[in-house]
Amino acid sequence: MIGRLNHVAIAVRDIAKASETYRATLGAEVSDAVPQHAHGVTTVFITLPNTKIELLEPLGADSPIEKFLQKNPDGGIHHICYEVDDIIAARDALKGKGARILGDGEPKIGAHGKPVLFLHPKDFNGTLVELEQA
Amino acid sequence: MIGRLNHVAIAVRDIAKASETYRATLGAEVSDAVPQHAHGVTTVFITLPNTKIELLEPLGADSPIEKFLQKNPDGGIHHICYEVDDIIAARDALKGKGARILGDGEPKIGAHGKPVLFLHPKDFNGTLVELEQA
Repeated sequence: MIGRLNHVAIAVRDIAKASETYRATLGAEVSDAVPQHAHGVTTVFITLPNTKIELLEPLGADSPIEKFLQKNPDGGIHHICYEVDDIIAARDALKGKGARILGDGEPKIGAHGKPVLFLHPKDFNGTLVELEQA
Repeated sequence: MIGRLNHVAIAVRDIAKASETYRATLGAEVSDAVPQHAHGVTTVFITLPNTKIELLEPLGADSPIEKFLQKNPDGGIHHICYEVDDIIAARDALKGKGARILGDGEPKIGAHGKPVLFLHPKDFNGTLVELEQA
């Protein structure tokens, strides 16, 4: 069912500083920061030859990553995103196997403009898993 | 400097159960478990089209992931590994920029038989970063 690793998302308190670490210290290709008001985060994409790293900084009062950063003040890996061909078929298959879908279980349009879902970390080795329709 | 994302490593308490989640629930290609006594972990590799997920289970009394699992009893993402062409050149460049190398700063032979180093999470957004010579 799962295909490519679309991205690894790293939550950070200061996305300008984190971007500079990836650009200047690690020598990676780093995008500009883009505020994503609908998602409560500012994003930066780091393009690697085979996948992406997504830096996330909280945006606004109800950012979905605020609680994570309170627990992890240095930042940390927030989630991993796997691609699927058909997100509804994937969701239904996962539900049939007892996996829990976060929220209301309906795909939302994610930061890349594609339908996404999040799976319950307790069902996946303590790892928050995002599925994105490729 | 950094190249491909070689793998994302997920620490788990029960690698048989975690393997089954990836195989049966997520439909991925999952290797057999391999005890790596020199590294204090048992490993399973999940092959995705563009990279790998590495499951790690503690092996022996002094496993390097035991403390992480005590803090994260459900498991969680332990580190990410980026490839570099020349690990000594990468190390020296990173040290020159003030980044801290863990341990004695000398590359060790990692679970894939290639030289690896780990970088201090506090210098990289709370993320433990492994560098592997490609």
